[in-house]
Amino acid sequence: MISKRIEAAMAGSSAIRAMFMEGREMAARYGAEHVYDFSLGNPATPAPERLNGAIRELLENTDSLELHGYMANAGYEDVRGRIAENLNQRFGTDFAARNVLMTVGAAGGLNVVLKTLLDPGDEVIVFVPYFGEYRSYVGNYDGRLVEAATREEDFQPDLADFACKITARTKAVIINTPNNPTGVVYDEETMRGLARIMEEKEREFSTDIYLISDEPYRELVYDGIREEFLTKYYRNTIVGYSFSKSLSLPGERIGYVVVPDEAADSGLLLEGMSVANRILGFVNAPSLMQKAAALCVEEKTDVDFYDRNRRTLYEGLTGLGFTCIRPQGAFYLWMKSPVEQEEQFVEAAKKYHLILVKGSAFGRGGYVRLAYCVSHETIVNSMEAFAQLAAEYGLQKQS
Amino acid sequence: MISKRIEAAMAGSSAIRAMFMEGREMAARYGAEHVYDFSLGNPATPAPERLNGAIRELLENTDSLELHGYMANAGYEDVRGRIAENLNQRFGTDFAARNVLMTVGAAGGLNVVLKTLLDPGDEVIVFVPYFGEYRSYVGNYDGRLVEAATREEDFQPDLADFACKITARTKAVIINTPNNPTGVVYDEETMRGLARIMEEKEREFSTDIYLISDEPYRELVYDGIREEFLTKYYRNTIVGYSFSKSLSLPGERIGYVVVPDEAADSGLLLEGMSVANRILGFVNAPSLMQKAAALCVEEKTDVDFYDRNRRTLYEGLTGLGFTCIRPQGAFYLWMKSPVEQEEQFVEAAKKYHLILVKGSAFGRGGYVRLAYCVSHETIVNSMEAFAQLAAEYGLQKQS
Repeated sequence: MISKRIEAAMAGSSAIRAMFMEGREMAARYGAEHVYDFSLGNPATPAPERLNGAIRELLENTDSLELHGYMANAGYEDVRGRIAENLNQRFGTDFAARNVLMTVGAAGGLNVVLKTLLDPGDEVIVFVPYFGEYRSYVGNYDGRLVEAATREEDFQPDLADFACKITARTKAVIINTPNNPTGVVYDEETMRGLARIMEEKEREFSTDIYLISDEPYRELVYDGIREEFLTKYYRNTIVGYSFSKSLSLPGERIGYVVVPDEAADSGLLLEGMSVANRILGFVNAPSLMQKAAALCVEEKTDVDFYDRNRRTLYEGLTGLGFTCIRPQGAFYLWMKSPVEQEEQFVEAAKKYHLILVKGSAFGRGGYVRLAYCVSHETIVNSMEAFAQLAAEYGLQKQS
Repeated sequence: MISKRIEAAMAGSSAIRAMFMEGREMAARYGAEHVYDFSLGNPATPAPERLNGAIRELLENTDSLELHGYMANAGYEDVRGRIAENLNQRFGTDFAARNVLMTVGAAGGLNVVLKTLLDPGDEVIVFVPYFGEYRSYVGNYDGRLVEAATREEDFQPDLADFACKITARTKAVIINTPNNPTGVVYDEETMRGLARIMEEKEREFSTDIYLISDEPYRELVYDGIREEFLTKYYRNTIVGYSFSKSLSLPGERIGYVVVPDEAADSGLLLEGMSVANRILGFVNAPSLMQKAAALCVEEKTDVDFYDRNRRTLYEGLTGLGFTCIRPQGAFYLWMKSPVEQEEQFVEAAKKYHLILVKGSAFGRGGYVRLAYCVSHETIVNSMEAFAQLAAEYGLQKQS
């Protein structure tokens, strides 16, 4: 009796969740300390102290009907203003409250944007590998997902392939940098290249093509990489953000979307997104958390914690002879499977209580994803298991 | 550049919001105390004291990653169990955690249910007048909204018309009792009649037809009416609930859906709804508020506050010669327009700073809706304005 579309979603989109469940069962059987679960992208550091303090202050000082009540579907005006101001300070942008729409996390934000943009059959380009949920989000509005390639050596977008994939029906391009699952941060050359191609194609087809930048990992960058605000490269850029990772509160569902004034039909888009927020059933982003997030925009997550994990994992795995893309951001490591059928490798890893996610869950076989948002101890202790796995595949230790 | 569907939604669904904005502008011009705004269904009583206490306790006693982190898409197991237990105590039902799915308010819950049930072209029956958002929710999944009539004298469903509207494509029937906009509570005879007809039609067409009961106003009933849990009448009943009104926190977006074991494909439905929760971008209901709501299931909103408003408004308006349906629940009063074109009456009311919503926003012209979730003072003070309005239409005072 359930719909065919949800049946398909149930069958297709559960690889990460399935591995997570296997990890939990394994932990129950062998003890959590003997299972190395790299499946789920759940922050491993607690929320900054300030968050709970901010909530307490709000409970103390704010009228109940204001704190827990309805506001405009786009969110509280003062919260949107505070976020705009903070972005302007950090990135030299020029946003106002009107450019910001509060959303139920980045996932809610993407759905609101796609609902507002897509007519049935409109095409949305993603770069392989990509977060598997994008397929569902685009499908929700009868859009067509079009896959563009990345370069094998560094997983930056393959610009030549990208240019070929744009058609008169291309309505949007989703990018995700720092990237899930590869950990790659798009460099300036990539961003300028993407912008140039999109501008050319807009002229060629007389269309507007929106660049949707999905940035839940914006602040999680390493090796001195400077975070950028991507509206600077391309006029028709829409940025989706979530506080899930920066404030370690993924369960609270709080994020926002930014549409700059210079984007085509900016005002109409924002108005449409406000209606989409309502009719999709979000209505508005959770009220108390909107106000709490606004009080915490200056807070930073513990990047050093993830950085230490990253180094230990990357150095450990490459030392054992695995081929990995060196992560530059987010908390994912993208590792080449020693055999082309990476499902087989994922199965083999389970014998050593290592829980990995197959690359084909992200549209790219031959690789696996490791989420290193775990305790540092888990990584250190997992190395013996990885050594056994490497030995099984006859890998050569590197020195 | 925005989608045709959102364009249509923008044009069509803003009657309540438009009146609310007019009310605000009028308040800015003439002073809030001289404007009688009956447009918006926003609770007027503060959240129970216990809510903020519960939040403080949770901040104090719960690990940050547990309190603000991801959990299963269906919600925390213990929260779902606590809600099931509370329903069982109050209504003699037999639910367990597995029957409850936590949602982003009732609006989020309805979207999750419809996403899970509807294939394109499936029909969903609603009773006129109805909450206008149902049209958008059904349209989101390419369903077809089918309107069934209510009886002019008491706005209970017209069972004969209902029976005619069910076809082989009918997938669901949405009811809303206590009702927005009429304030009517469906009586036992209505419920038994609906159930009997649906069972007959299920046999006739060899289909399952789900009764979706949208119950944000469940506890707001007056005159000693006993609240019922509607799964008792009909096997294939799905109940959607929101804490928005019972705990006065509509901005927090917290509710749930109940699917009883006896519903057809119960397990599959719940699994599908869990996936729908994820892919629609809700992911899960806000985490802190899930736990806070579970600690507040015994709390009650101030029904007496709304009851006093109801009596004052109903007696005042009928005394002035207006024809009203006596509200039995929720916080809405449904009043006959003295002229068939109620838009004209709504316009005339504005002259006296009375903000009403036209019935055609709910699919039923010739009536207006008054939301009496306002201060009692507003109602008392509005009577002089209503008297002038009544005089303009030549109504006779009743004694």
